Amino acid sequence: MIYFDNGATSFPKPNIVMQSALNAIRNFSFNSGRGGYRQSVRAAEKIYSVREKVGSMFGFEPQNIAFTKNCTEALNTAIKGSVKKGDRIIISSLEHNAVWRVVSKLKNEGIAEVDIADYDYDDDVCVSNFVKLIKPDTKLIVCMSTSNVFGVAFPIAKIGAEAKKRNIRFIVDGAQTAGIMPLNAETDNFDILCAPGHKCLLGQMGTGFMAVKEGISLNTLEEGGTGSNSLDSAQPDFMPDRFESGTLNNSGIISLGAGIDFINAKGMKNIYMHEMRTARLLYDGLNQDSNAVLYTPRPVNGKFAPIVSFNYKDYSSEKVAAFLAKNDIAVRAGYHCSPLAHKFFGTWDRGTVRLCPSVFNSVKDCEFFLNTLKKL
Amino acid sequence: MIYFDNGATSFPKPNIVMQSALNAIRNFSFNSGRGGYRQSVRAAEKIYSVREKVGSMFGFEPQNIAFTKNCTEALNTAIKGSVKKGDRIIISSLEHNAVWRVVSKLKNEGIAEVDIADYDYDDDVCVSNFVKLIKPDTKLIVCMSTSNVFGVAFPIAKIGAEAKKRNIRFIVDGAQTAGIMPLNAETDNFDILCAPGHKCLLGQMGTGFMAVKEGISLNTLEEGGTGSNSLDSAQPDFMPDRFESGTLNNSGIISLGAGIDFINAKGMKNIYMHEMRTARLLYDGLNQDSNAVLYTPRPVNGKFAPIVSFNYKDYSSEKVAAFLAKNDIAVRAGYHCSPLAHKFFGTWDRGTVRLCPSVFNSVKDCEFFLNTLKKL
Repeated sequence: MIYFDNGATSFPKPNIVMQSALNAIRNFSFNSGRGGYRQSVRAAEKIYSVREKVGSMFGFEPQNIAFTKNCTEALNTAIKGSVKKGDRIIISSLEHNAVWRVVSKLKNEGIAEVDIADYDYDDDVCVSNFVKLIKPDTKLIVCMSTSNVFGVAFPIAKIGAEAKKRNIRFIVDGAQTAGIMPLNAETDNFDILCAPGHKCLLGQMGTGFMAVKEGISLNTLEEGGTGSNSLDSAQPDFMPDRFESGTLNNSGIISLGAGIDFINAKGMKNIYMHEMRTARLLYDGLNQDSNAVLYTPRPVNGKFAPIVSFNYKDYSSEKVAAFLAKNDIAVRAGYHCSPLAHKFFGTWDRGTVRLCPSVFNSVKDCEFFLNTLKKL
Repeated sequence: MIYFDNGATSFPKPNIVMQSALNAIRNFSFNSGRGGYRQSVRAAEKIYSVREKVGSMFGFEPQNIAFTKNCTEALNTAIKGSVKKGDRIIISSLEHNAVWRVVSKLKNEGIAEVDIADYDYDDDVCVSNFVKLIKPDTKLIVCMSTSNVFGVAFPIAKIGAEAKKRNIRFIVDGAQTAGIMPLNAETDNFDILCAPGHKCLLGQMGTGFMAVKEGISLNTLEEGGTGSNSLDSAQPDFMPDRFESGTLNNSGIISLGAGIDFINAKGMKNIYMHEMRTARLLYDGLNQDSNAVLYTPRPVNGKFAPIVSFNYKDYSSEKVAAFLAKNDIAVRAGYHCSPLAHKFFGTWDRGTVRLCPSVFNSVKDCEFFLNTLKKL
C-alpha cells in the first residue's frame, strides 16, 4: 500500500514507536501514580518523561501537559474550560469540526457568540481579519496552525501577539503540524496547544494532549479519581491531575514519547523538508495533469503543511479515492470534517481528495500515484 | 511480582490480548470509518466486531456502544448528558470520585441536587434506602455495581426495577465487575452502563465504554469530527458517532475484544468463582491474623466482587503497602479515590490496603502474601 492518509493517522509508525508500544504493554501497563509498588512508580516516571519531551518540544512546563485520548478531547476541554456565559469567541474560517461543532454548540446554548475570521495568504491581511473582529467581550481566539484540508498555515505568532496585547486567551489546534513545524508557546504567543499524539508525533492512536501555559485557569470538562486529594469532592486545581481523571493510556503515551525521540533524532526540520518536497512533487504532477483541479498555490516551506487537496475531472472525490484504493493507494475523500474550509475554498459540492505524505513516502510513491491517476 | 492491584488495571493481560494489541498496532491502526481504502474499512469492521461483543455481553445493540478512554469519561458523559437544571440525582454512599466529583460539581454549579442512599447488606433495606430518597424531581440514579474498596455488591436489578417504575434514568458504574459478574441492561433494569476496558475485561489501558439502551436521549459532553454528517455544525444524533469524536484507540479497543474472547472461552462464571475463592483465601488468612483489621463479612458469591480491604496493626495503609512492595507484592493503599466509602465504613483516618486478585492468581500467591504480612 502507498499511504497518503497521514492527516488521519500516521502510517507506518517508526520502529522505535512500535517497539516502545510493545515494551510499554508488557512492562509499563500499571496504574501510574496510584500504587506504591516499583512497577507503578516506574510507569509514572516513564509517563513523566513523556511530559518532559512534549513540554520541551512546545515550550511548556512538563507538569502542564495533560494527556487526552485525542486532539478533539483536548480542544473540547480547552475551549469549554475557557468560556463563560456572555463571552465572544473568534475562530478561523478553516476550522475543523473539533472546533466548529464545539463553538456552534456554545452558541446554540446561548453561552457564547462566535465570530469567524477569514484566512488570507497575506499574513498581515490574515491577522487583521482577526483583529477587526475583536470586541470588548472577545475572550478567546481559537485557530488551527494549518488547515487539515488545504495545508495553508496561519500566522500563529502574529495572531497570538495581537491576542496577548489585549489579554485574550489564544488556543492553537496543532492537529496537522505539532511534530513537523515549530510551535512554541513563548515565541508563538499562544496559551494552550491541543494536538494529537498519533499524527505528526508518530505515536499510537488513542493519544493527544492539552498543553497549558503556567498561570492559565481552566474549568474542567471531566472530573473523577486522580489519585490525589482523594478525600476532596472537588477536582484538584493543579496540573496535570486536574485534567487527567481515571486511568491513562500508558502504552499510547509512552509510544508518543518514542515518536518524539524519532523526530528529535531525525530533526524536525529534515522531516518537514522531506514531506514538503513530497507534497510539491504531488502538487506539480497534478498541476501538469489538465484533468486535476487544485485549490491553493504551490505549497512553499513555512506557509504550508505537507497537504495537497484536489479533485479530478468532474468526478466525486469519493469516486477518485475508490479508484486509488483499488490500486492500493490510501487517500481520504470528502469533507475531512471541515465544512468551513470547503465553504471558504469553494469545494462544498464535492469535498476534495486529500494527499498527506509522511517522512516514509518516496519519489516512487508519488510517481506511482500520478501515473495511476491518469488511468482514471 | 505477585499482583493484587487488578482493581486499578488487570495484570498480566491474557496472551491473546497482548497478541491482539500487537496485531492491531501493525494491521488495524487506520482511521476507521473515514477512509475508503481497504485497511480503513477493515479497521472499522474490526472495531464494529468489538461493539458486537460488548453489546452481546451486556444486553445492548452493537451500535449503542460508544468507546471512551476510560470508565471515568464514560461516567462524565452519561451523567452530564442526562441532567438538566433543577434535576435531583441519587447516588450510593460508596460511589467513586468518578461519580462523586462529577455530581458534586453539578451541585456546586447549581445545576442539580444530590441525595446519597446508604448501602446495606440487606438487599431490601438497600433498595428502600434509594426509594425513600425519590422525590418528584429525581431524574437520575447512579450506582456502582460493587464497591471498588470493599467489594460489596448493590442489588442493581432491584434498584433498577424501582427506577424503571418511576421512569427515572438508571446509570450503572461497572468499573469493578463488568467482565466477571453478569450485568444485563434488560434483566438488571438499567439504562446506561459505564465500564473500563482494561480491568475485568482484560484489555489494554486507555479503553472504556458507555453503553446506552435504545431510545435514551443524551446531550453531548464533547463534539467534533465524526466522519459523518460532516457538513452539519451539529453533532450527529445517532450512536455511536454522537459520542465518538476524533480518532479512536484502535489497538486498545481491539485488545478489549480479545479480552472478551478470553472471558467467553474460559467462562465468566469460572473466572468469577476462581477470583472469589482467591479473595476468600485472603480474607480467611487475614481473619486468622489477630493483627489484621477487616471491614466486611466474608465475601460470598453473588454479593461481593473479589476485593478485600484491610489494615494492619495501627500502621498507615501506605506503610503496609510499602512493606509488601519491598517483598514484590503489588497492592494499593490509601483511599482508592472513594472518600464516601471510607466515611461509610469508618476508614476515613487511614484508608485501607486493598487486595484485588485476578484469574491469574494462585493459592501460592495468597500464602506468600499472608506469610509475608506476618513479618511486618
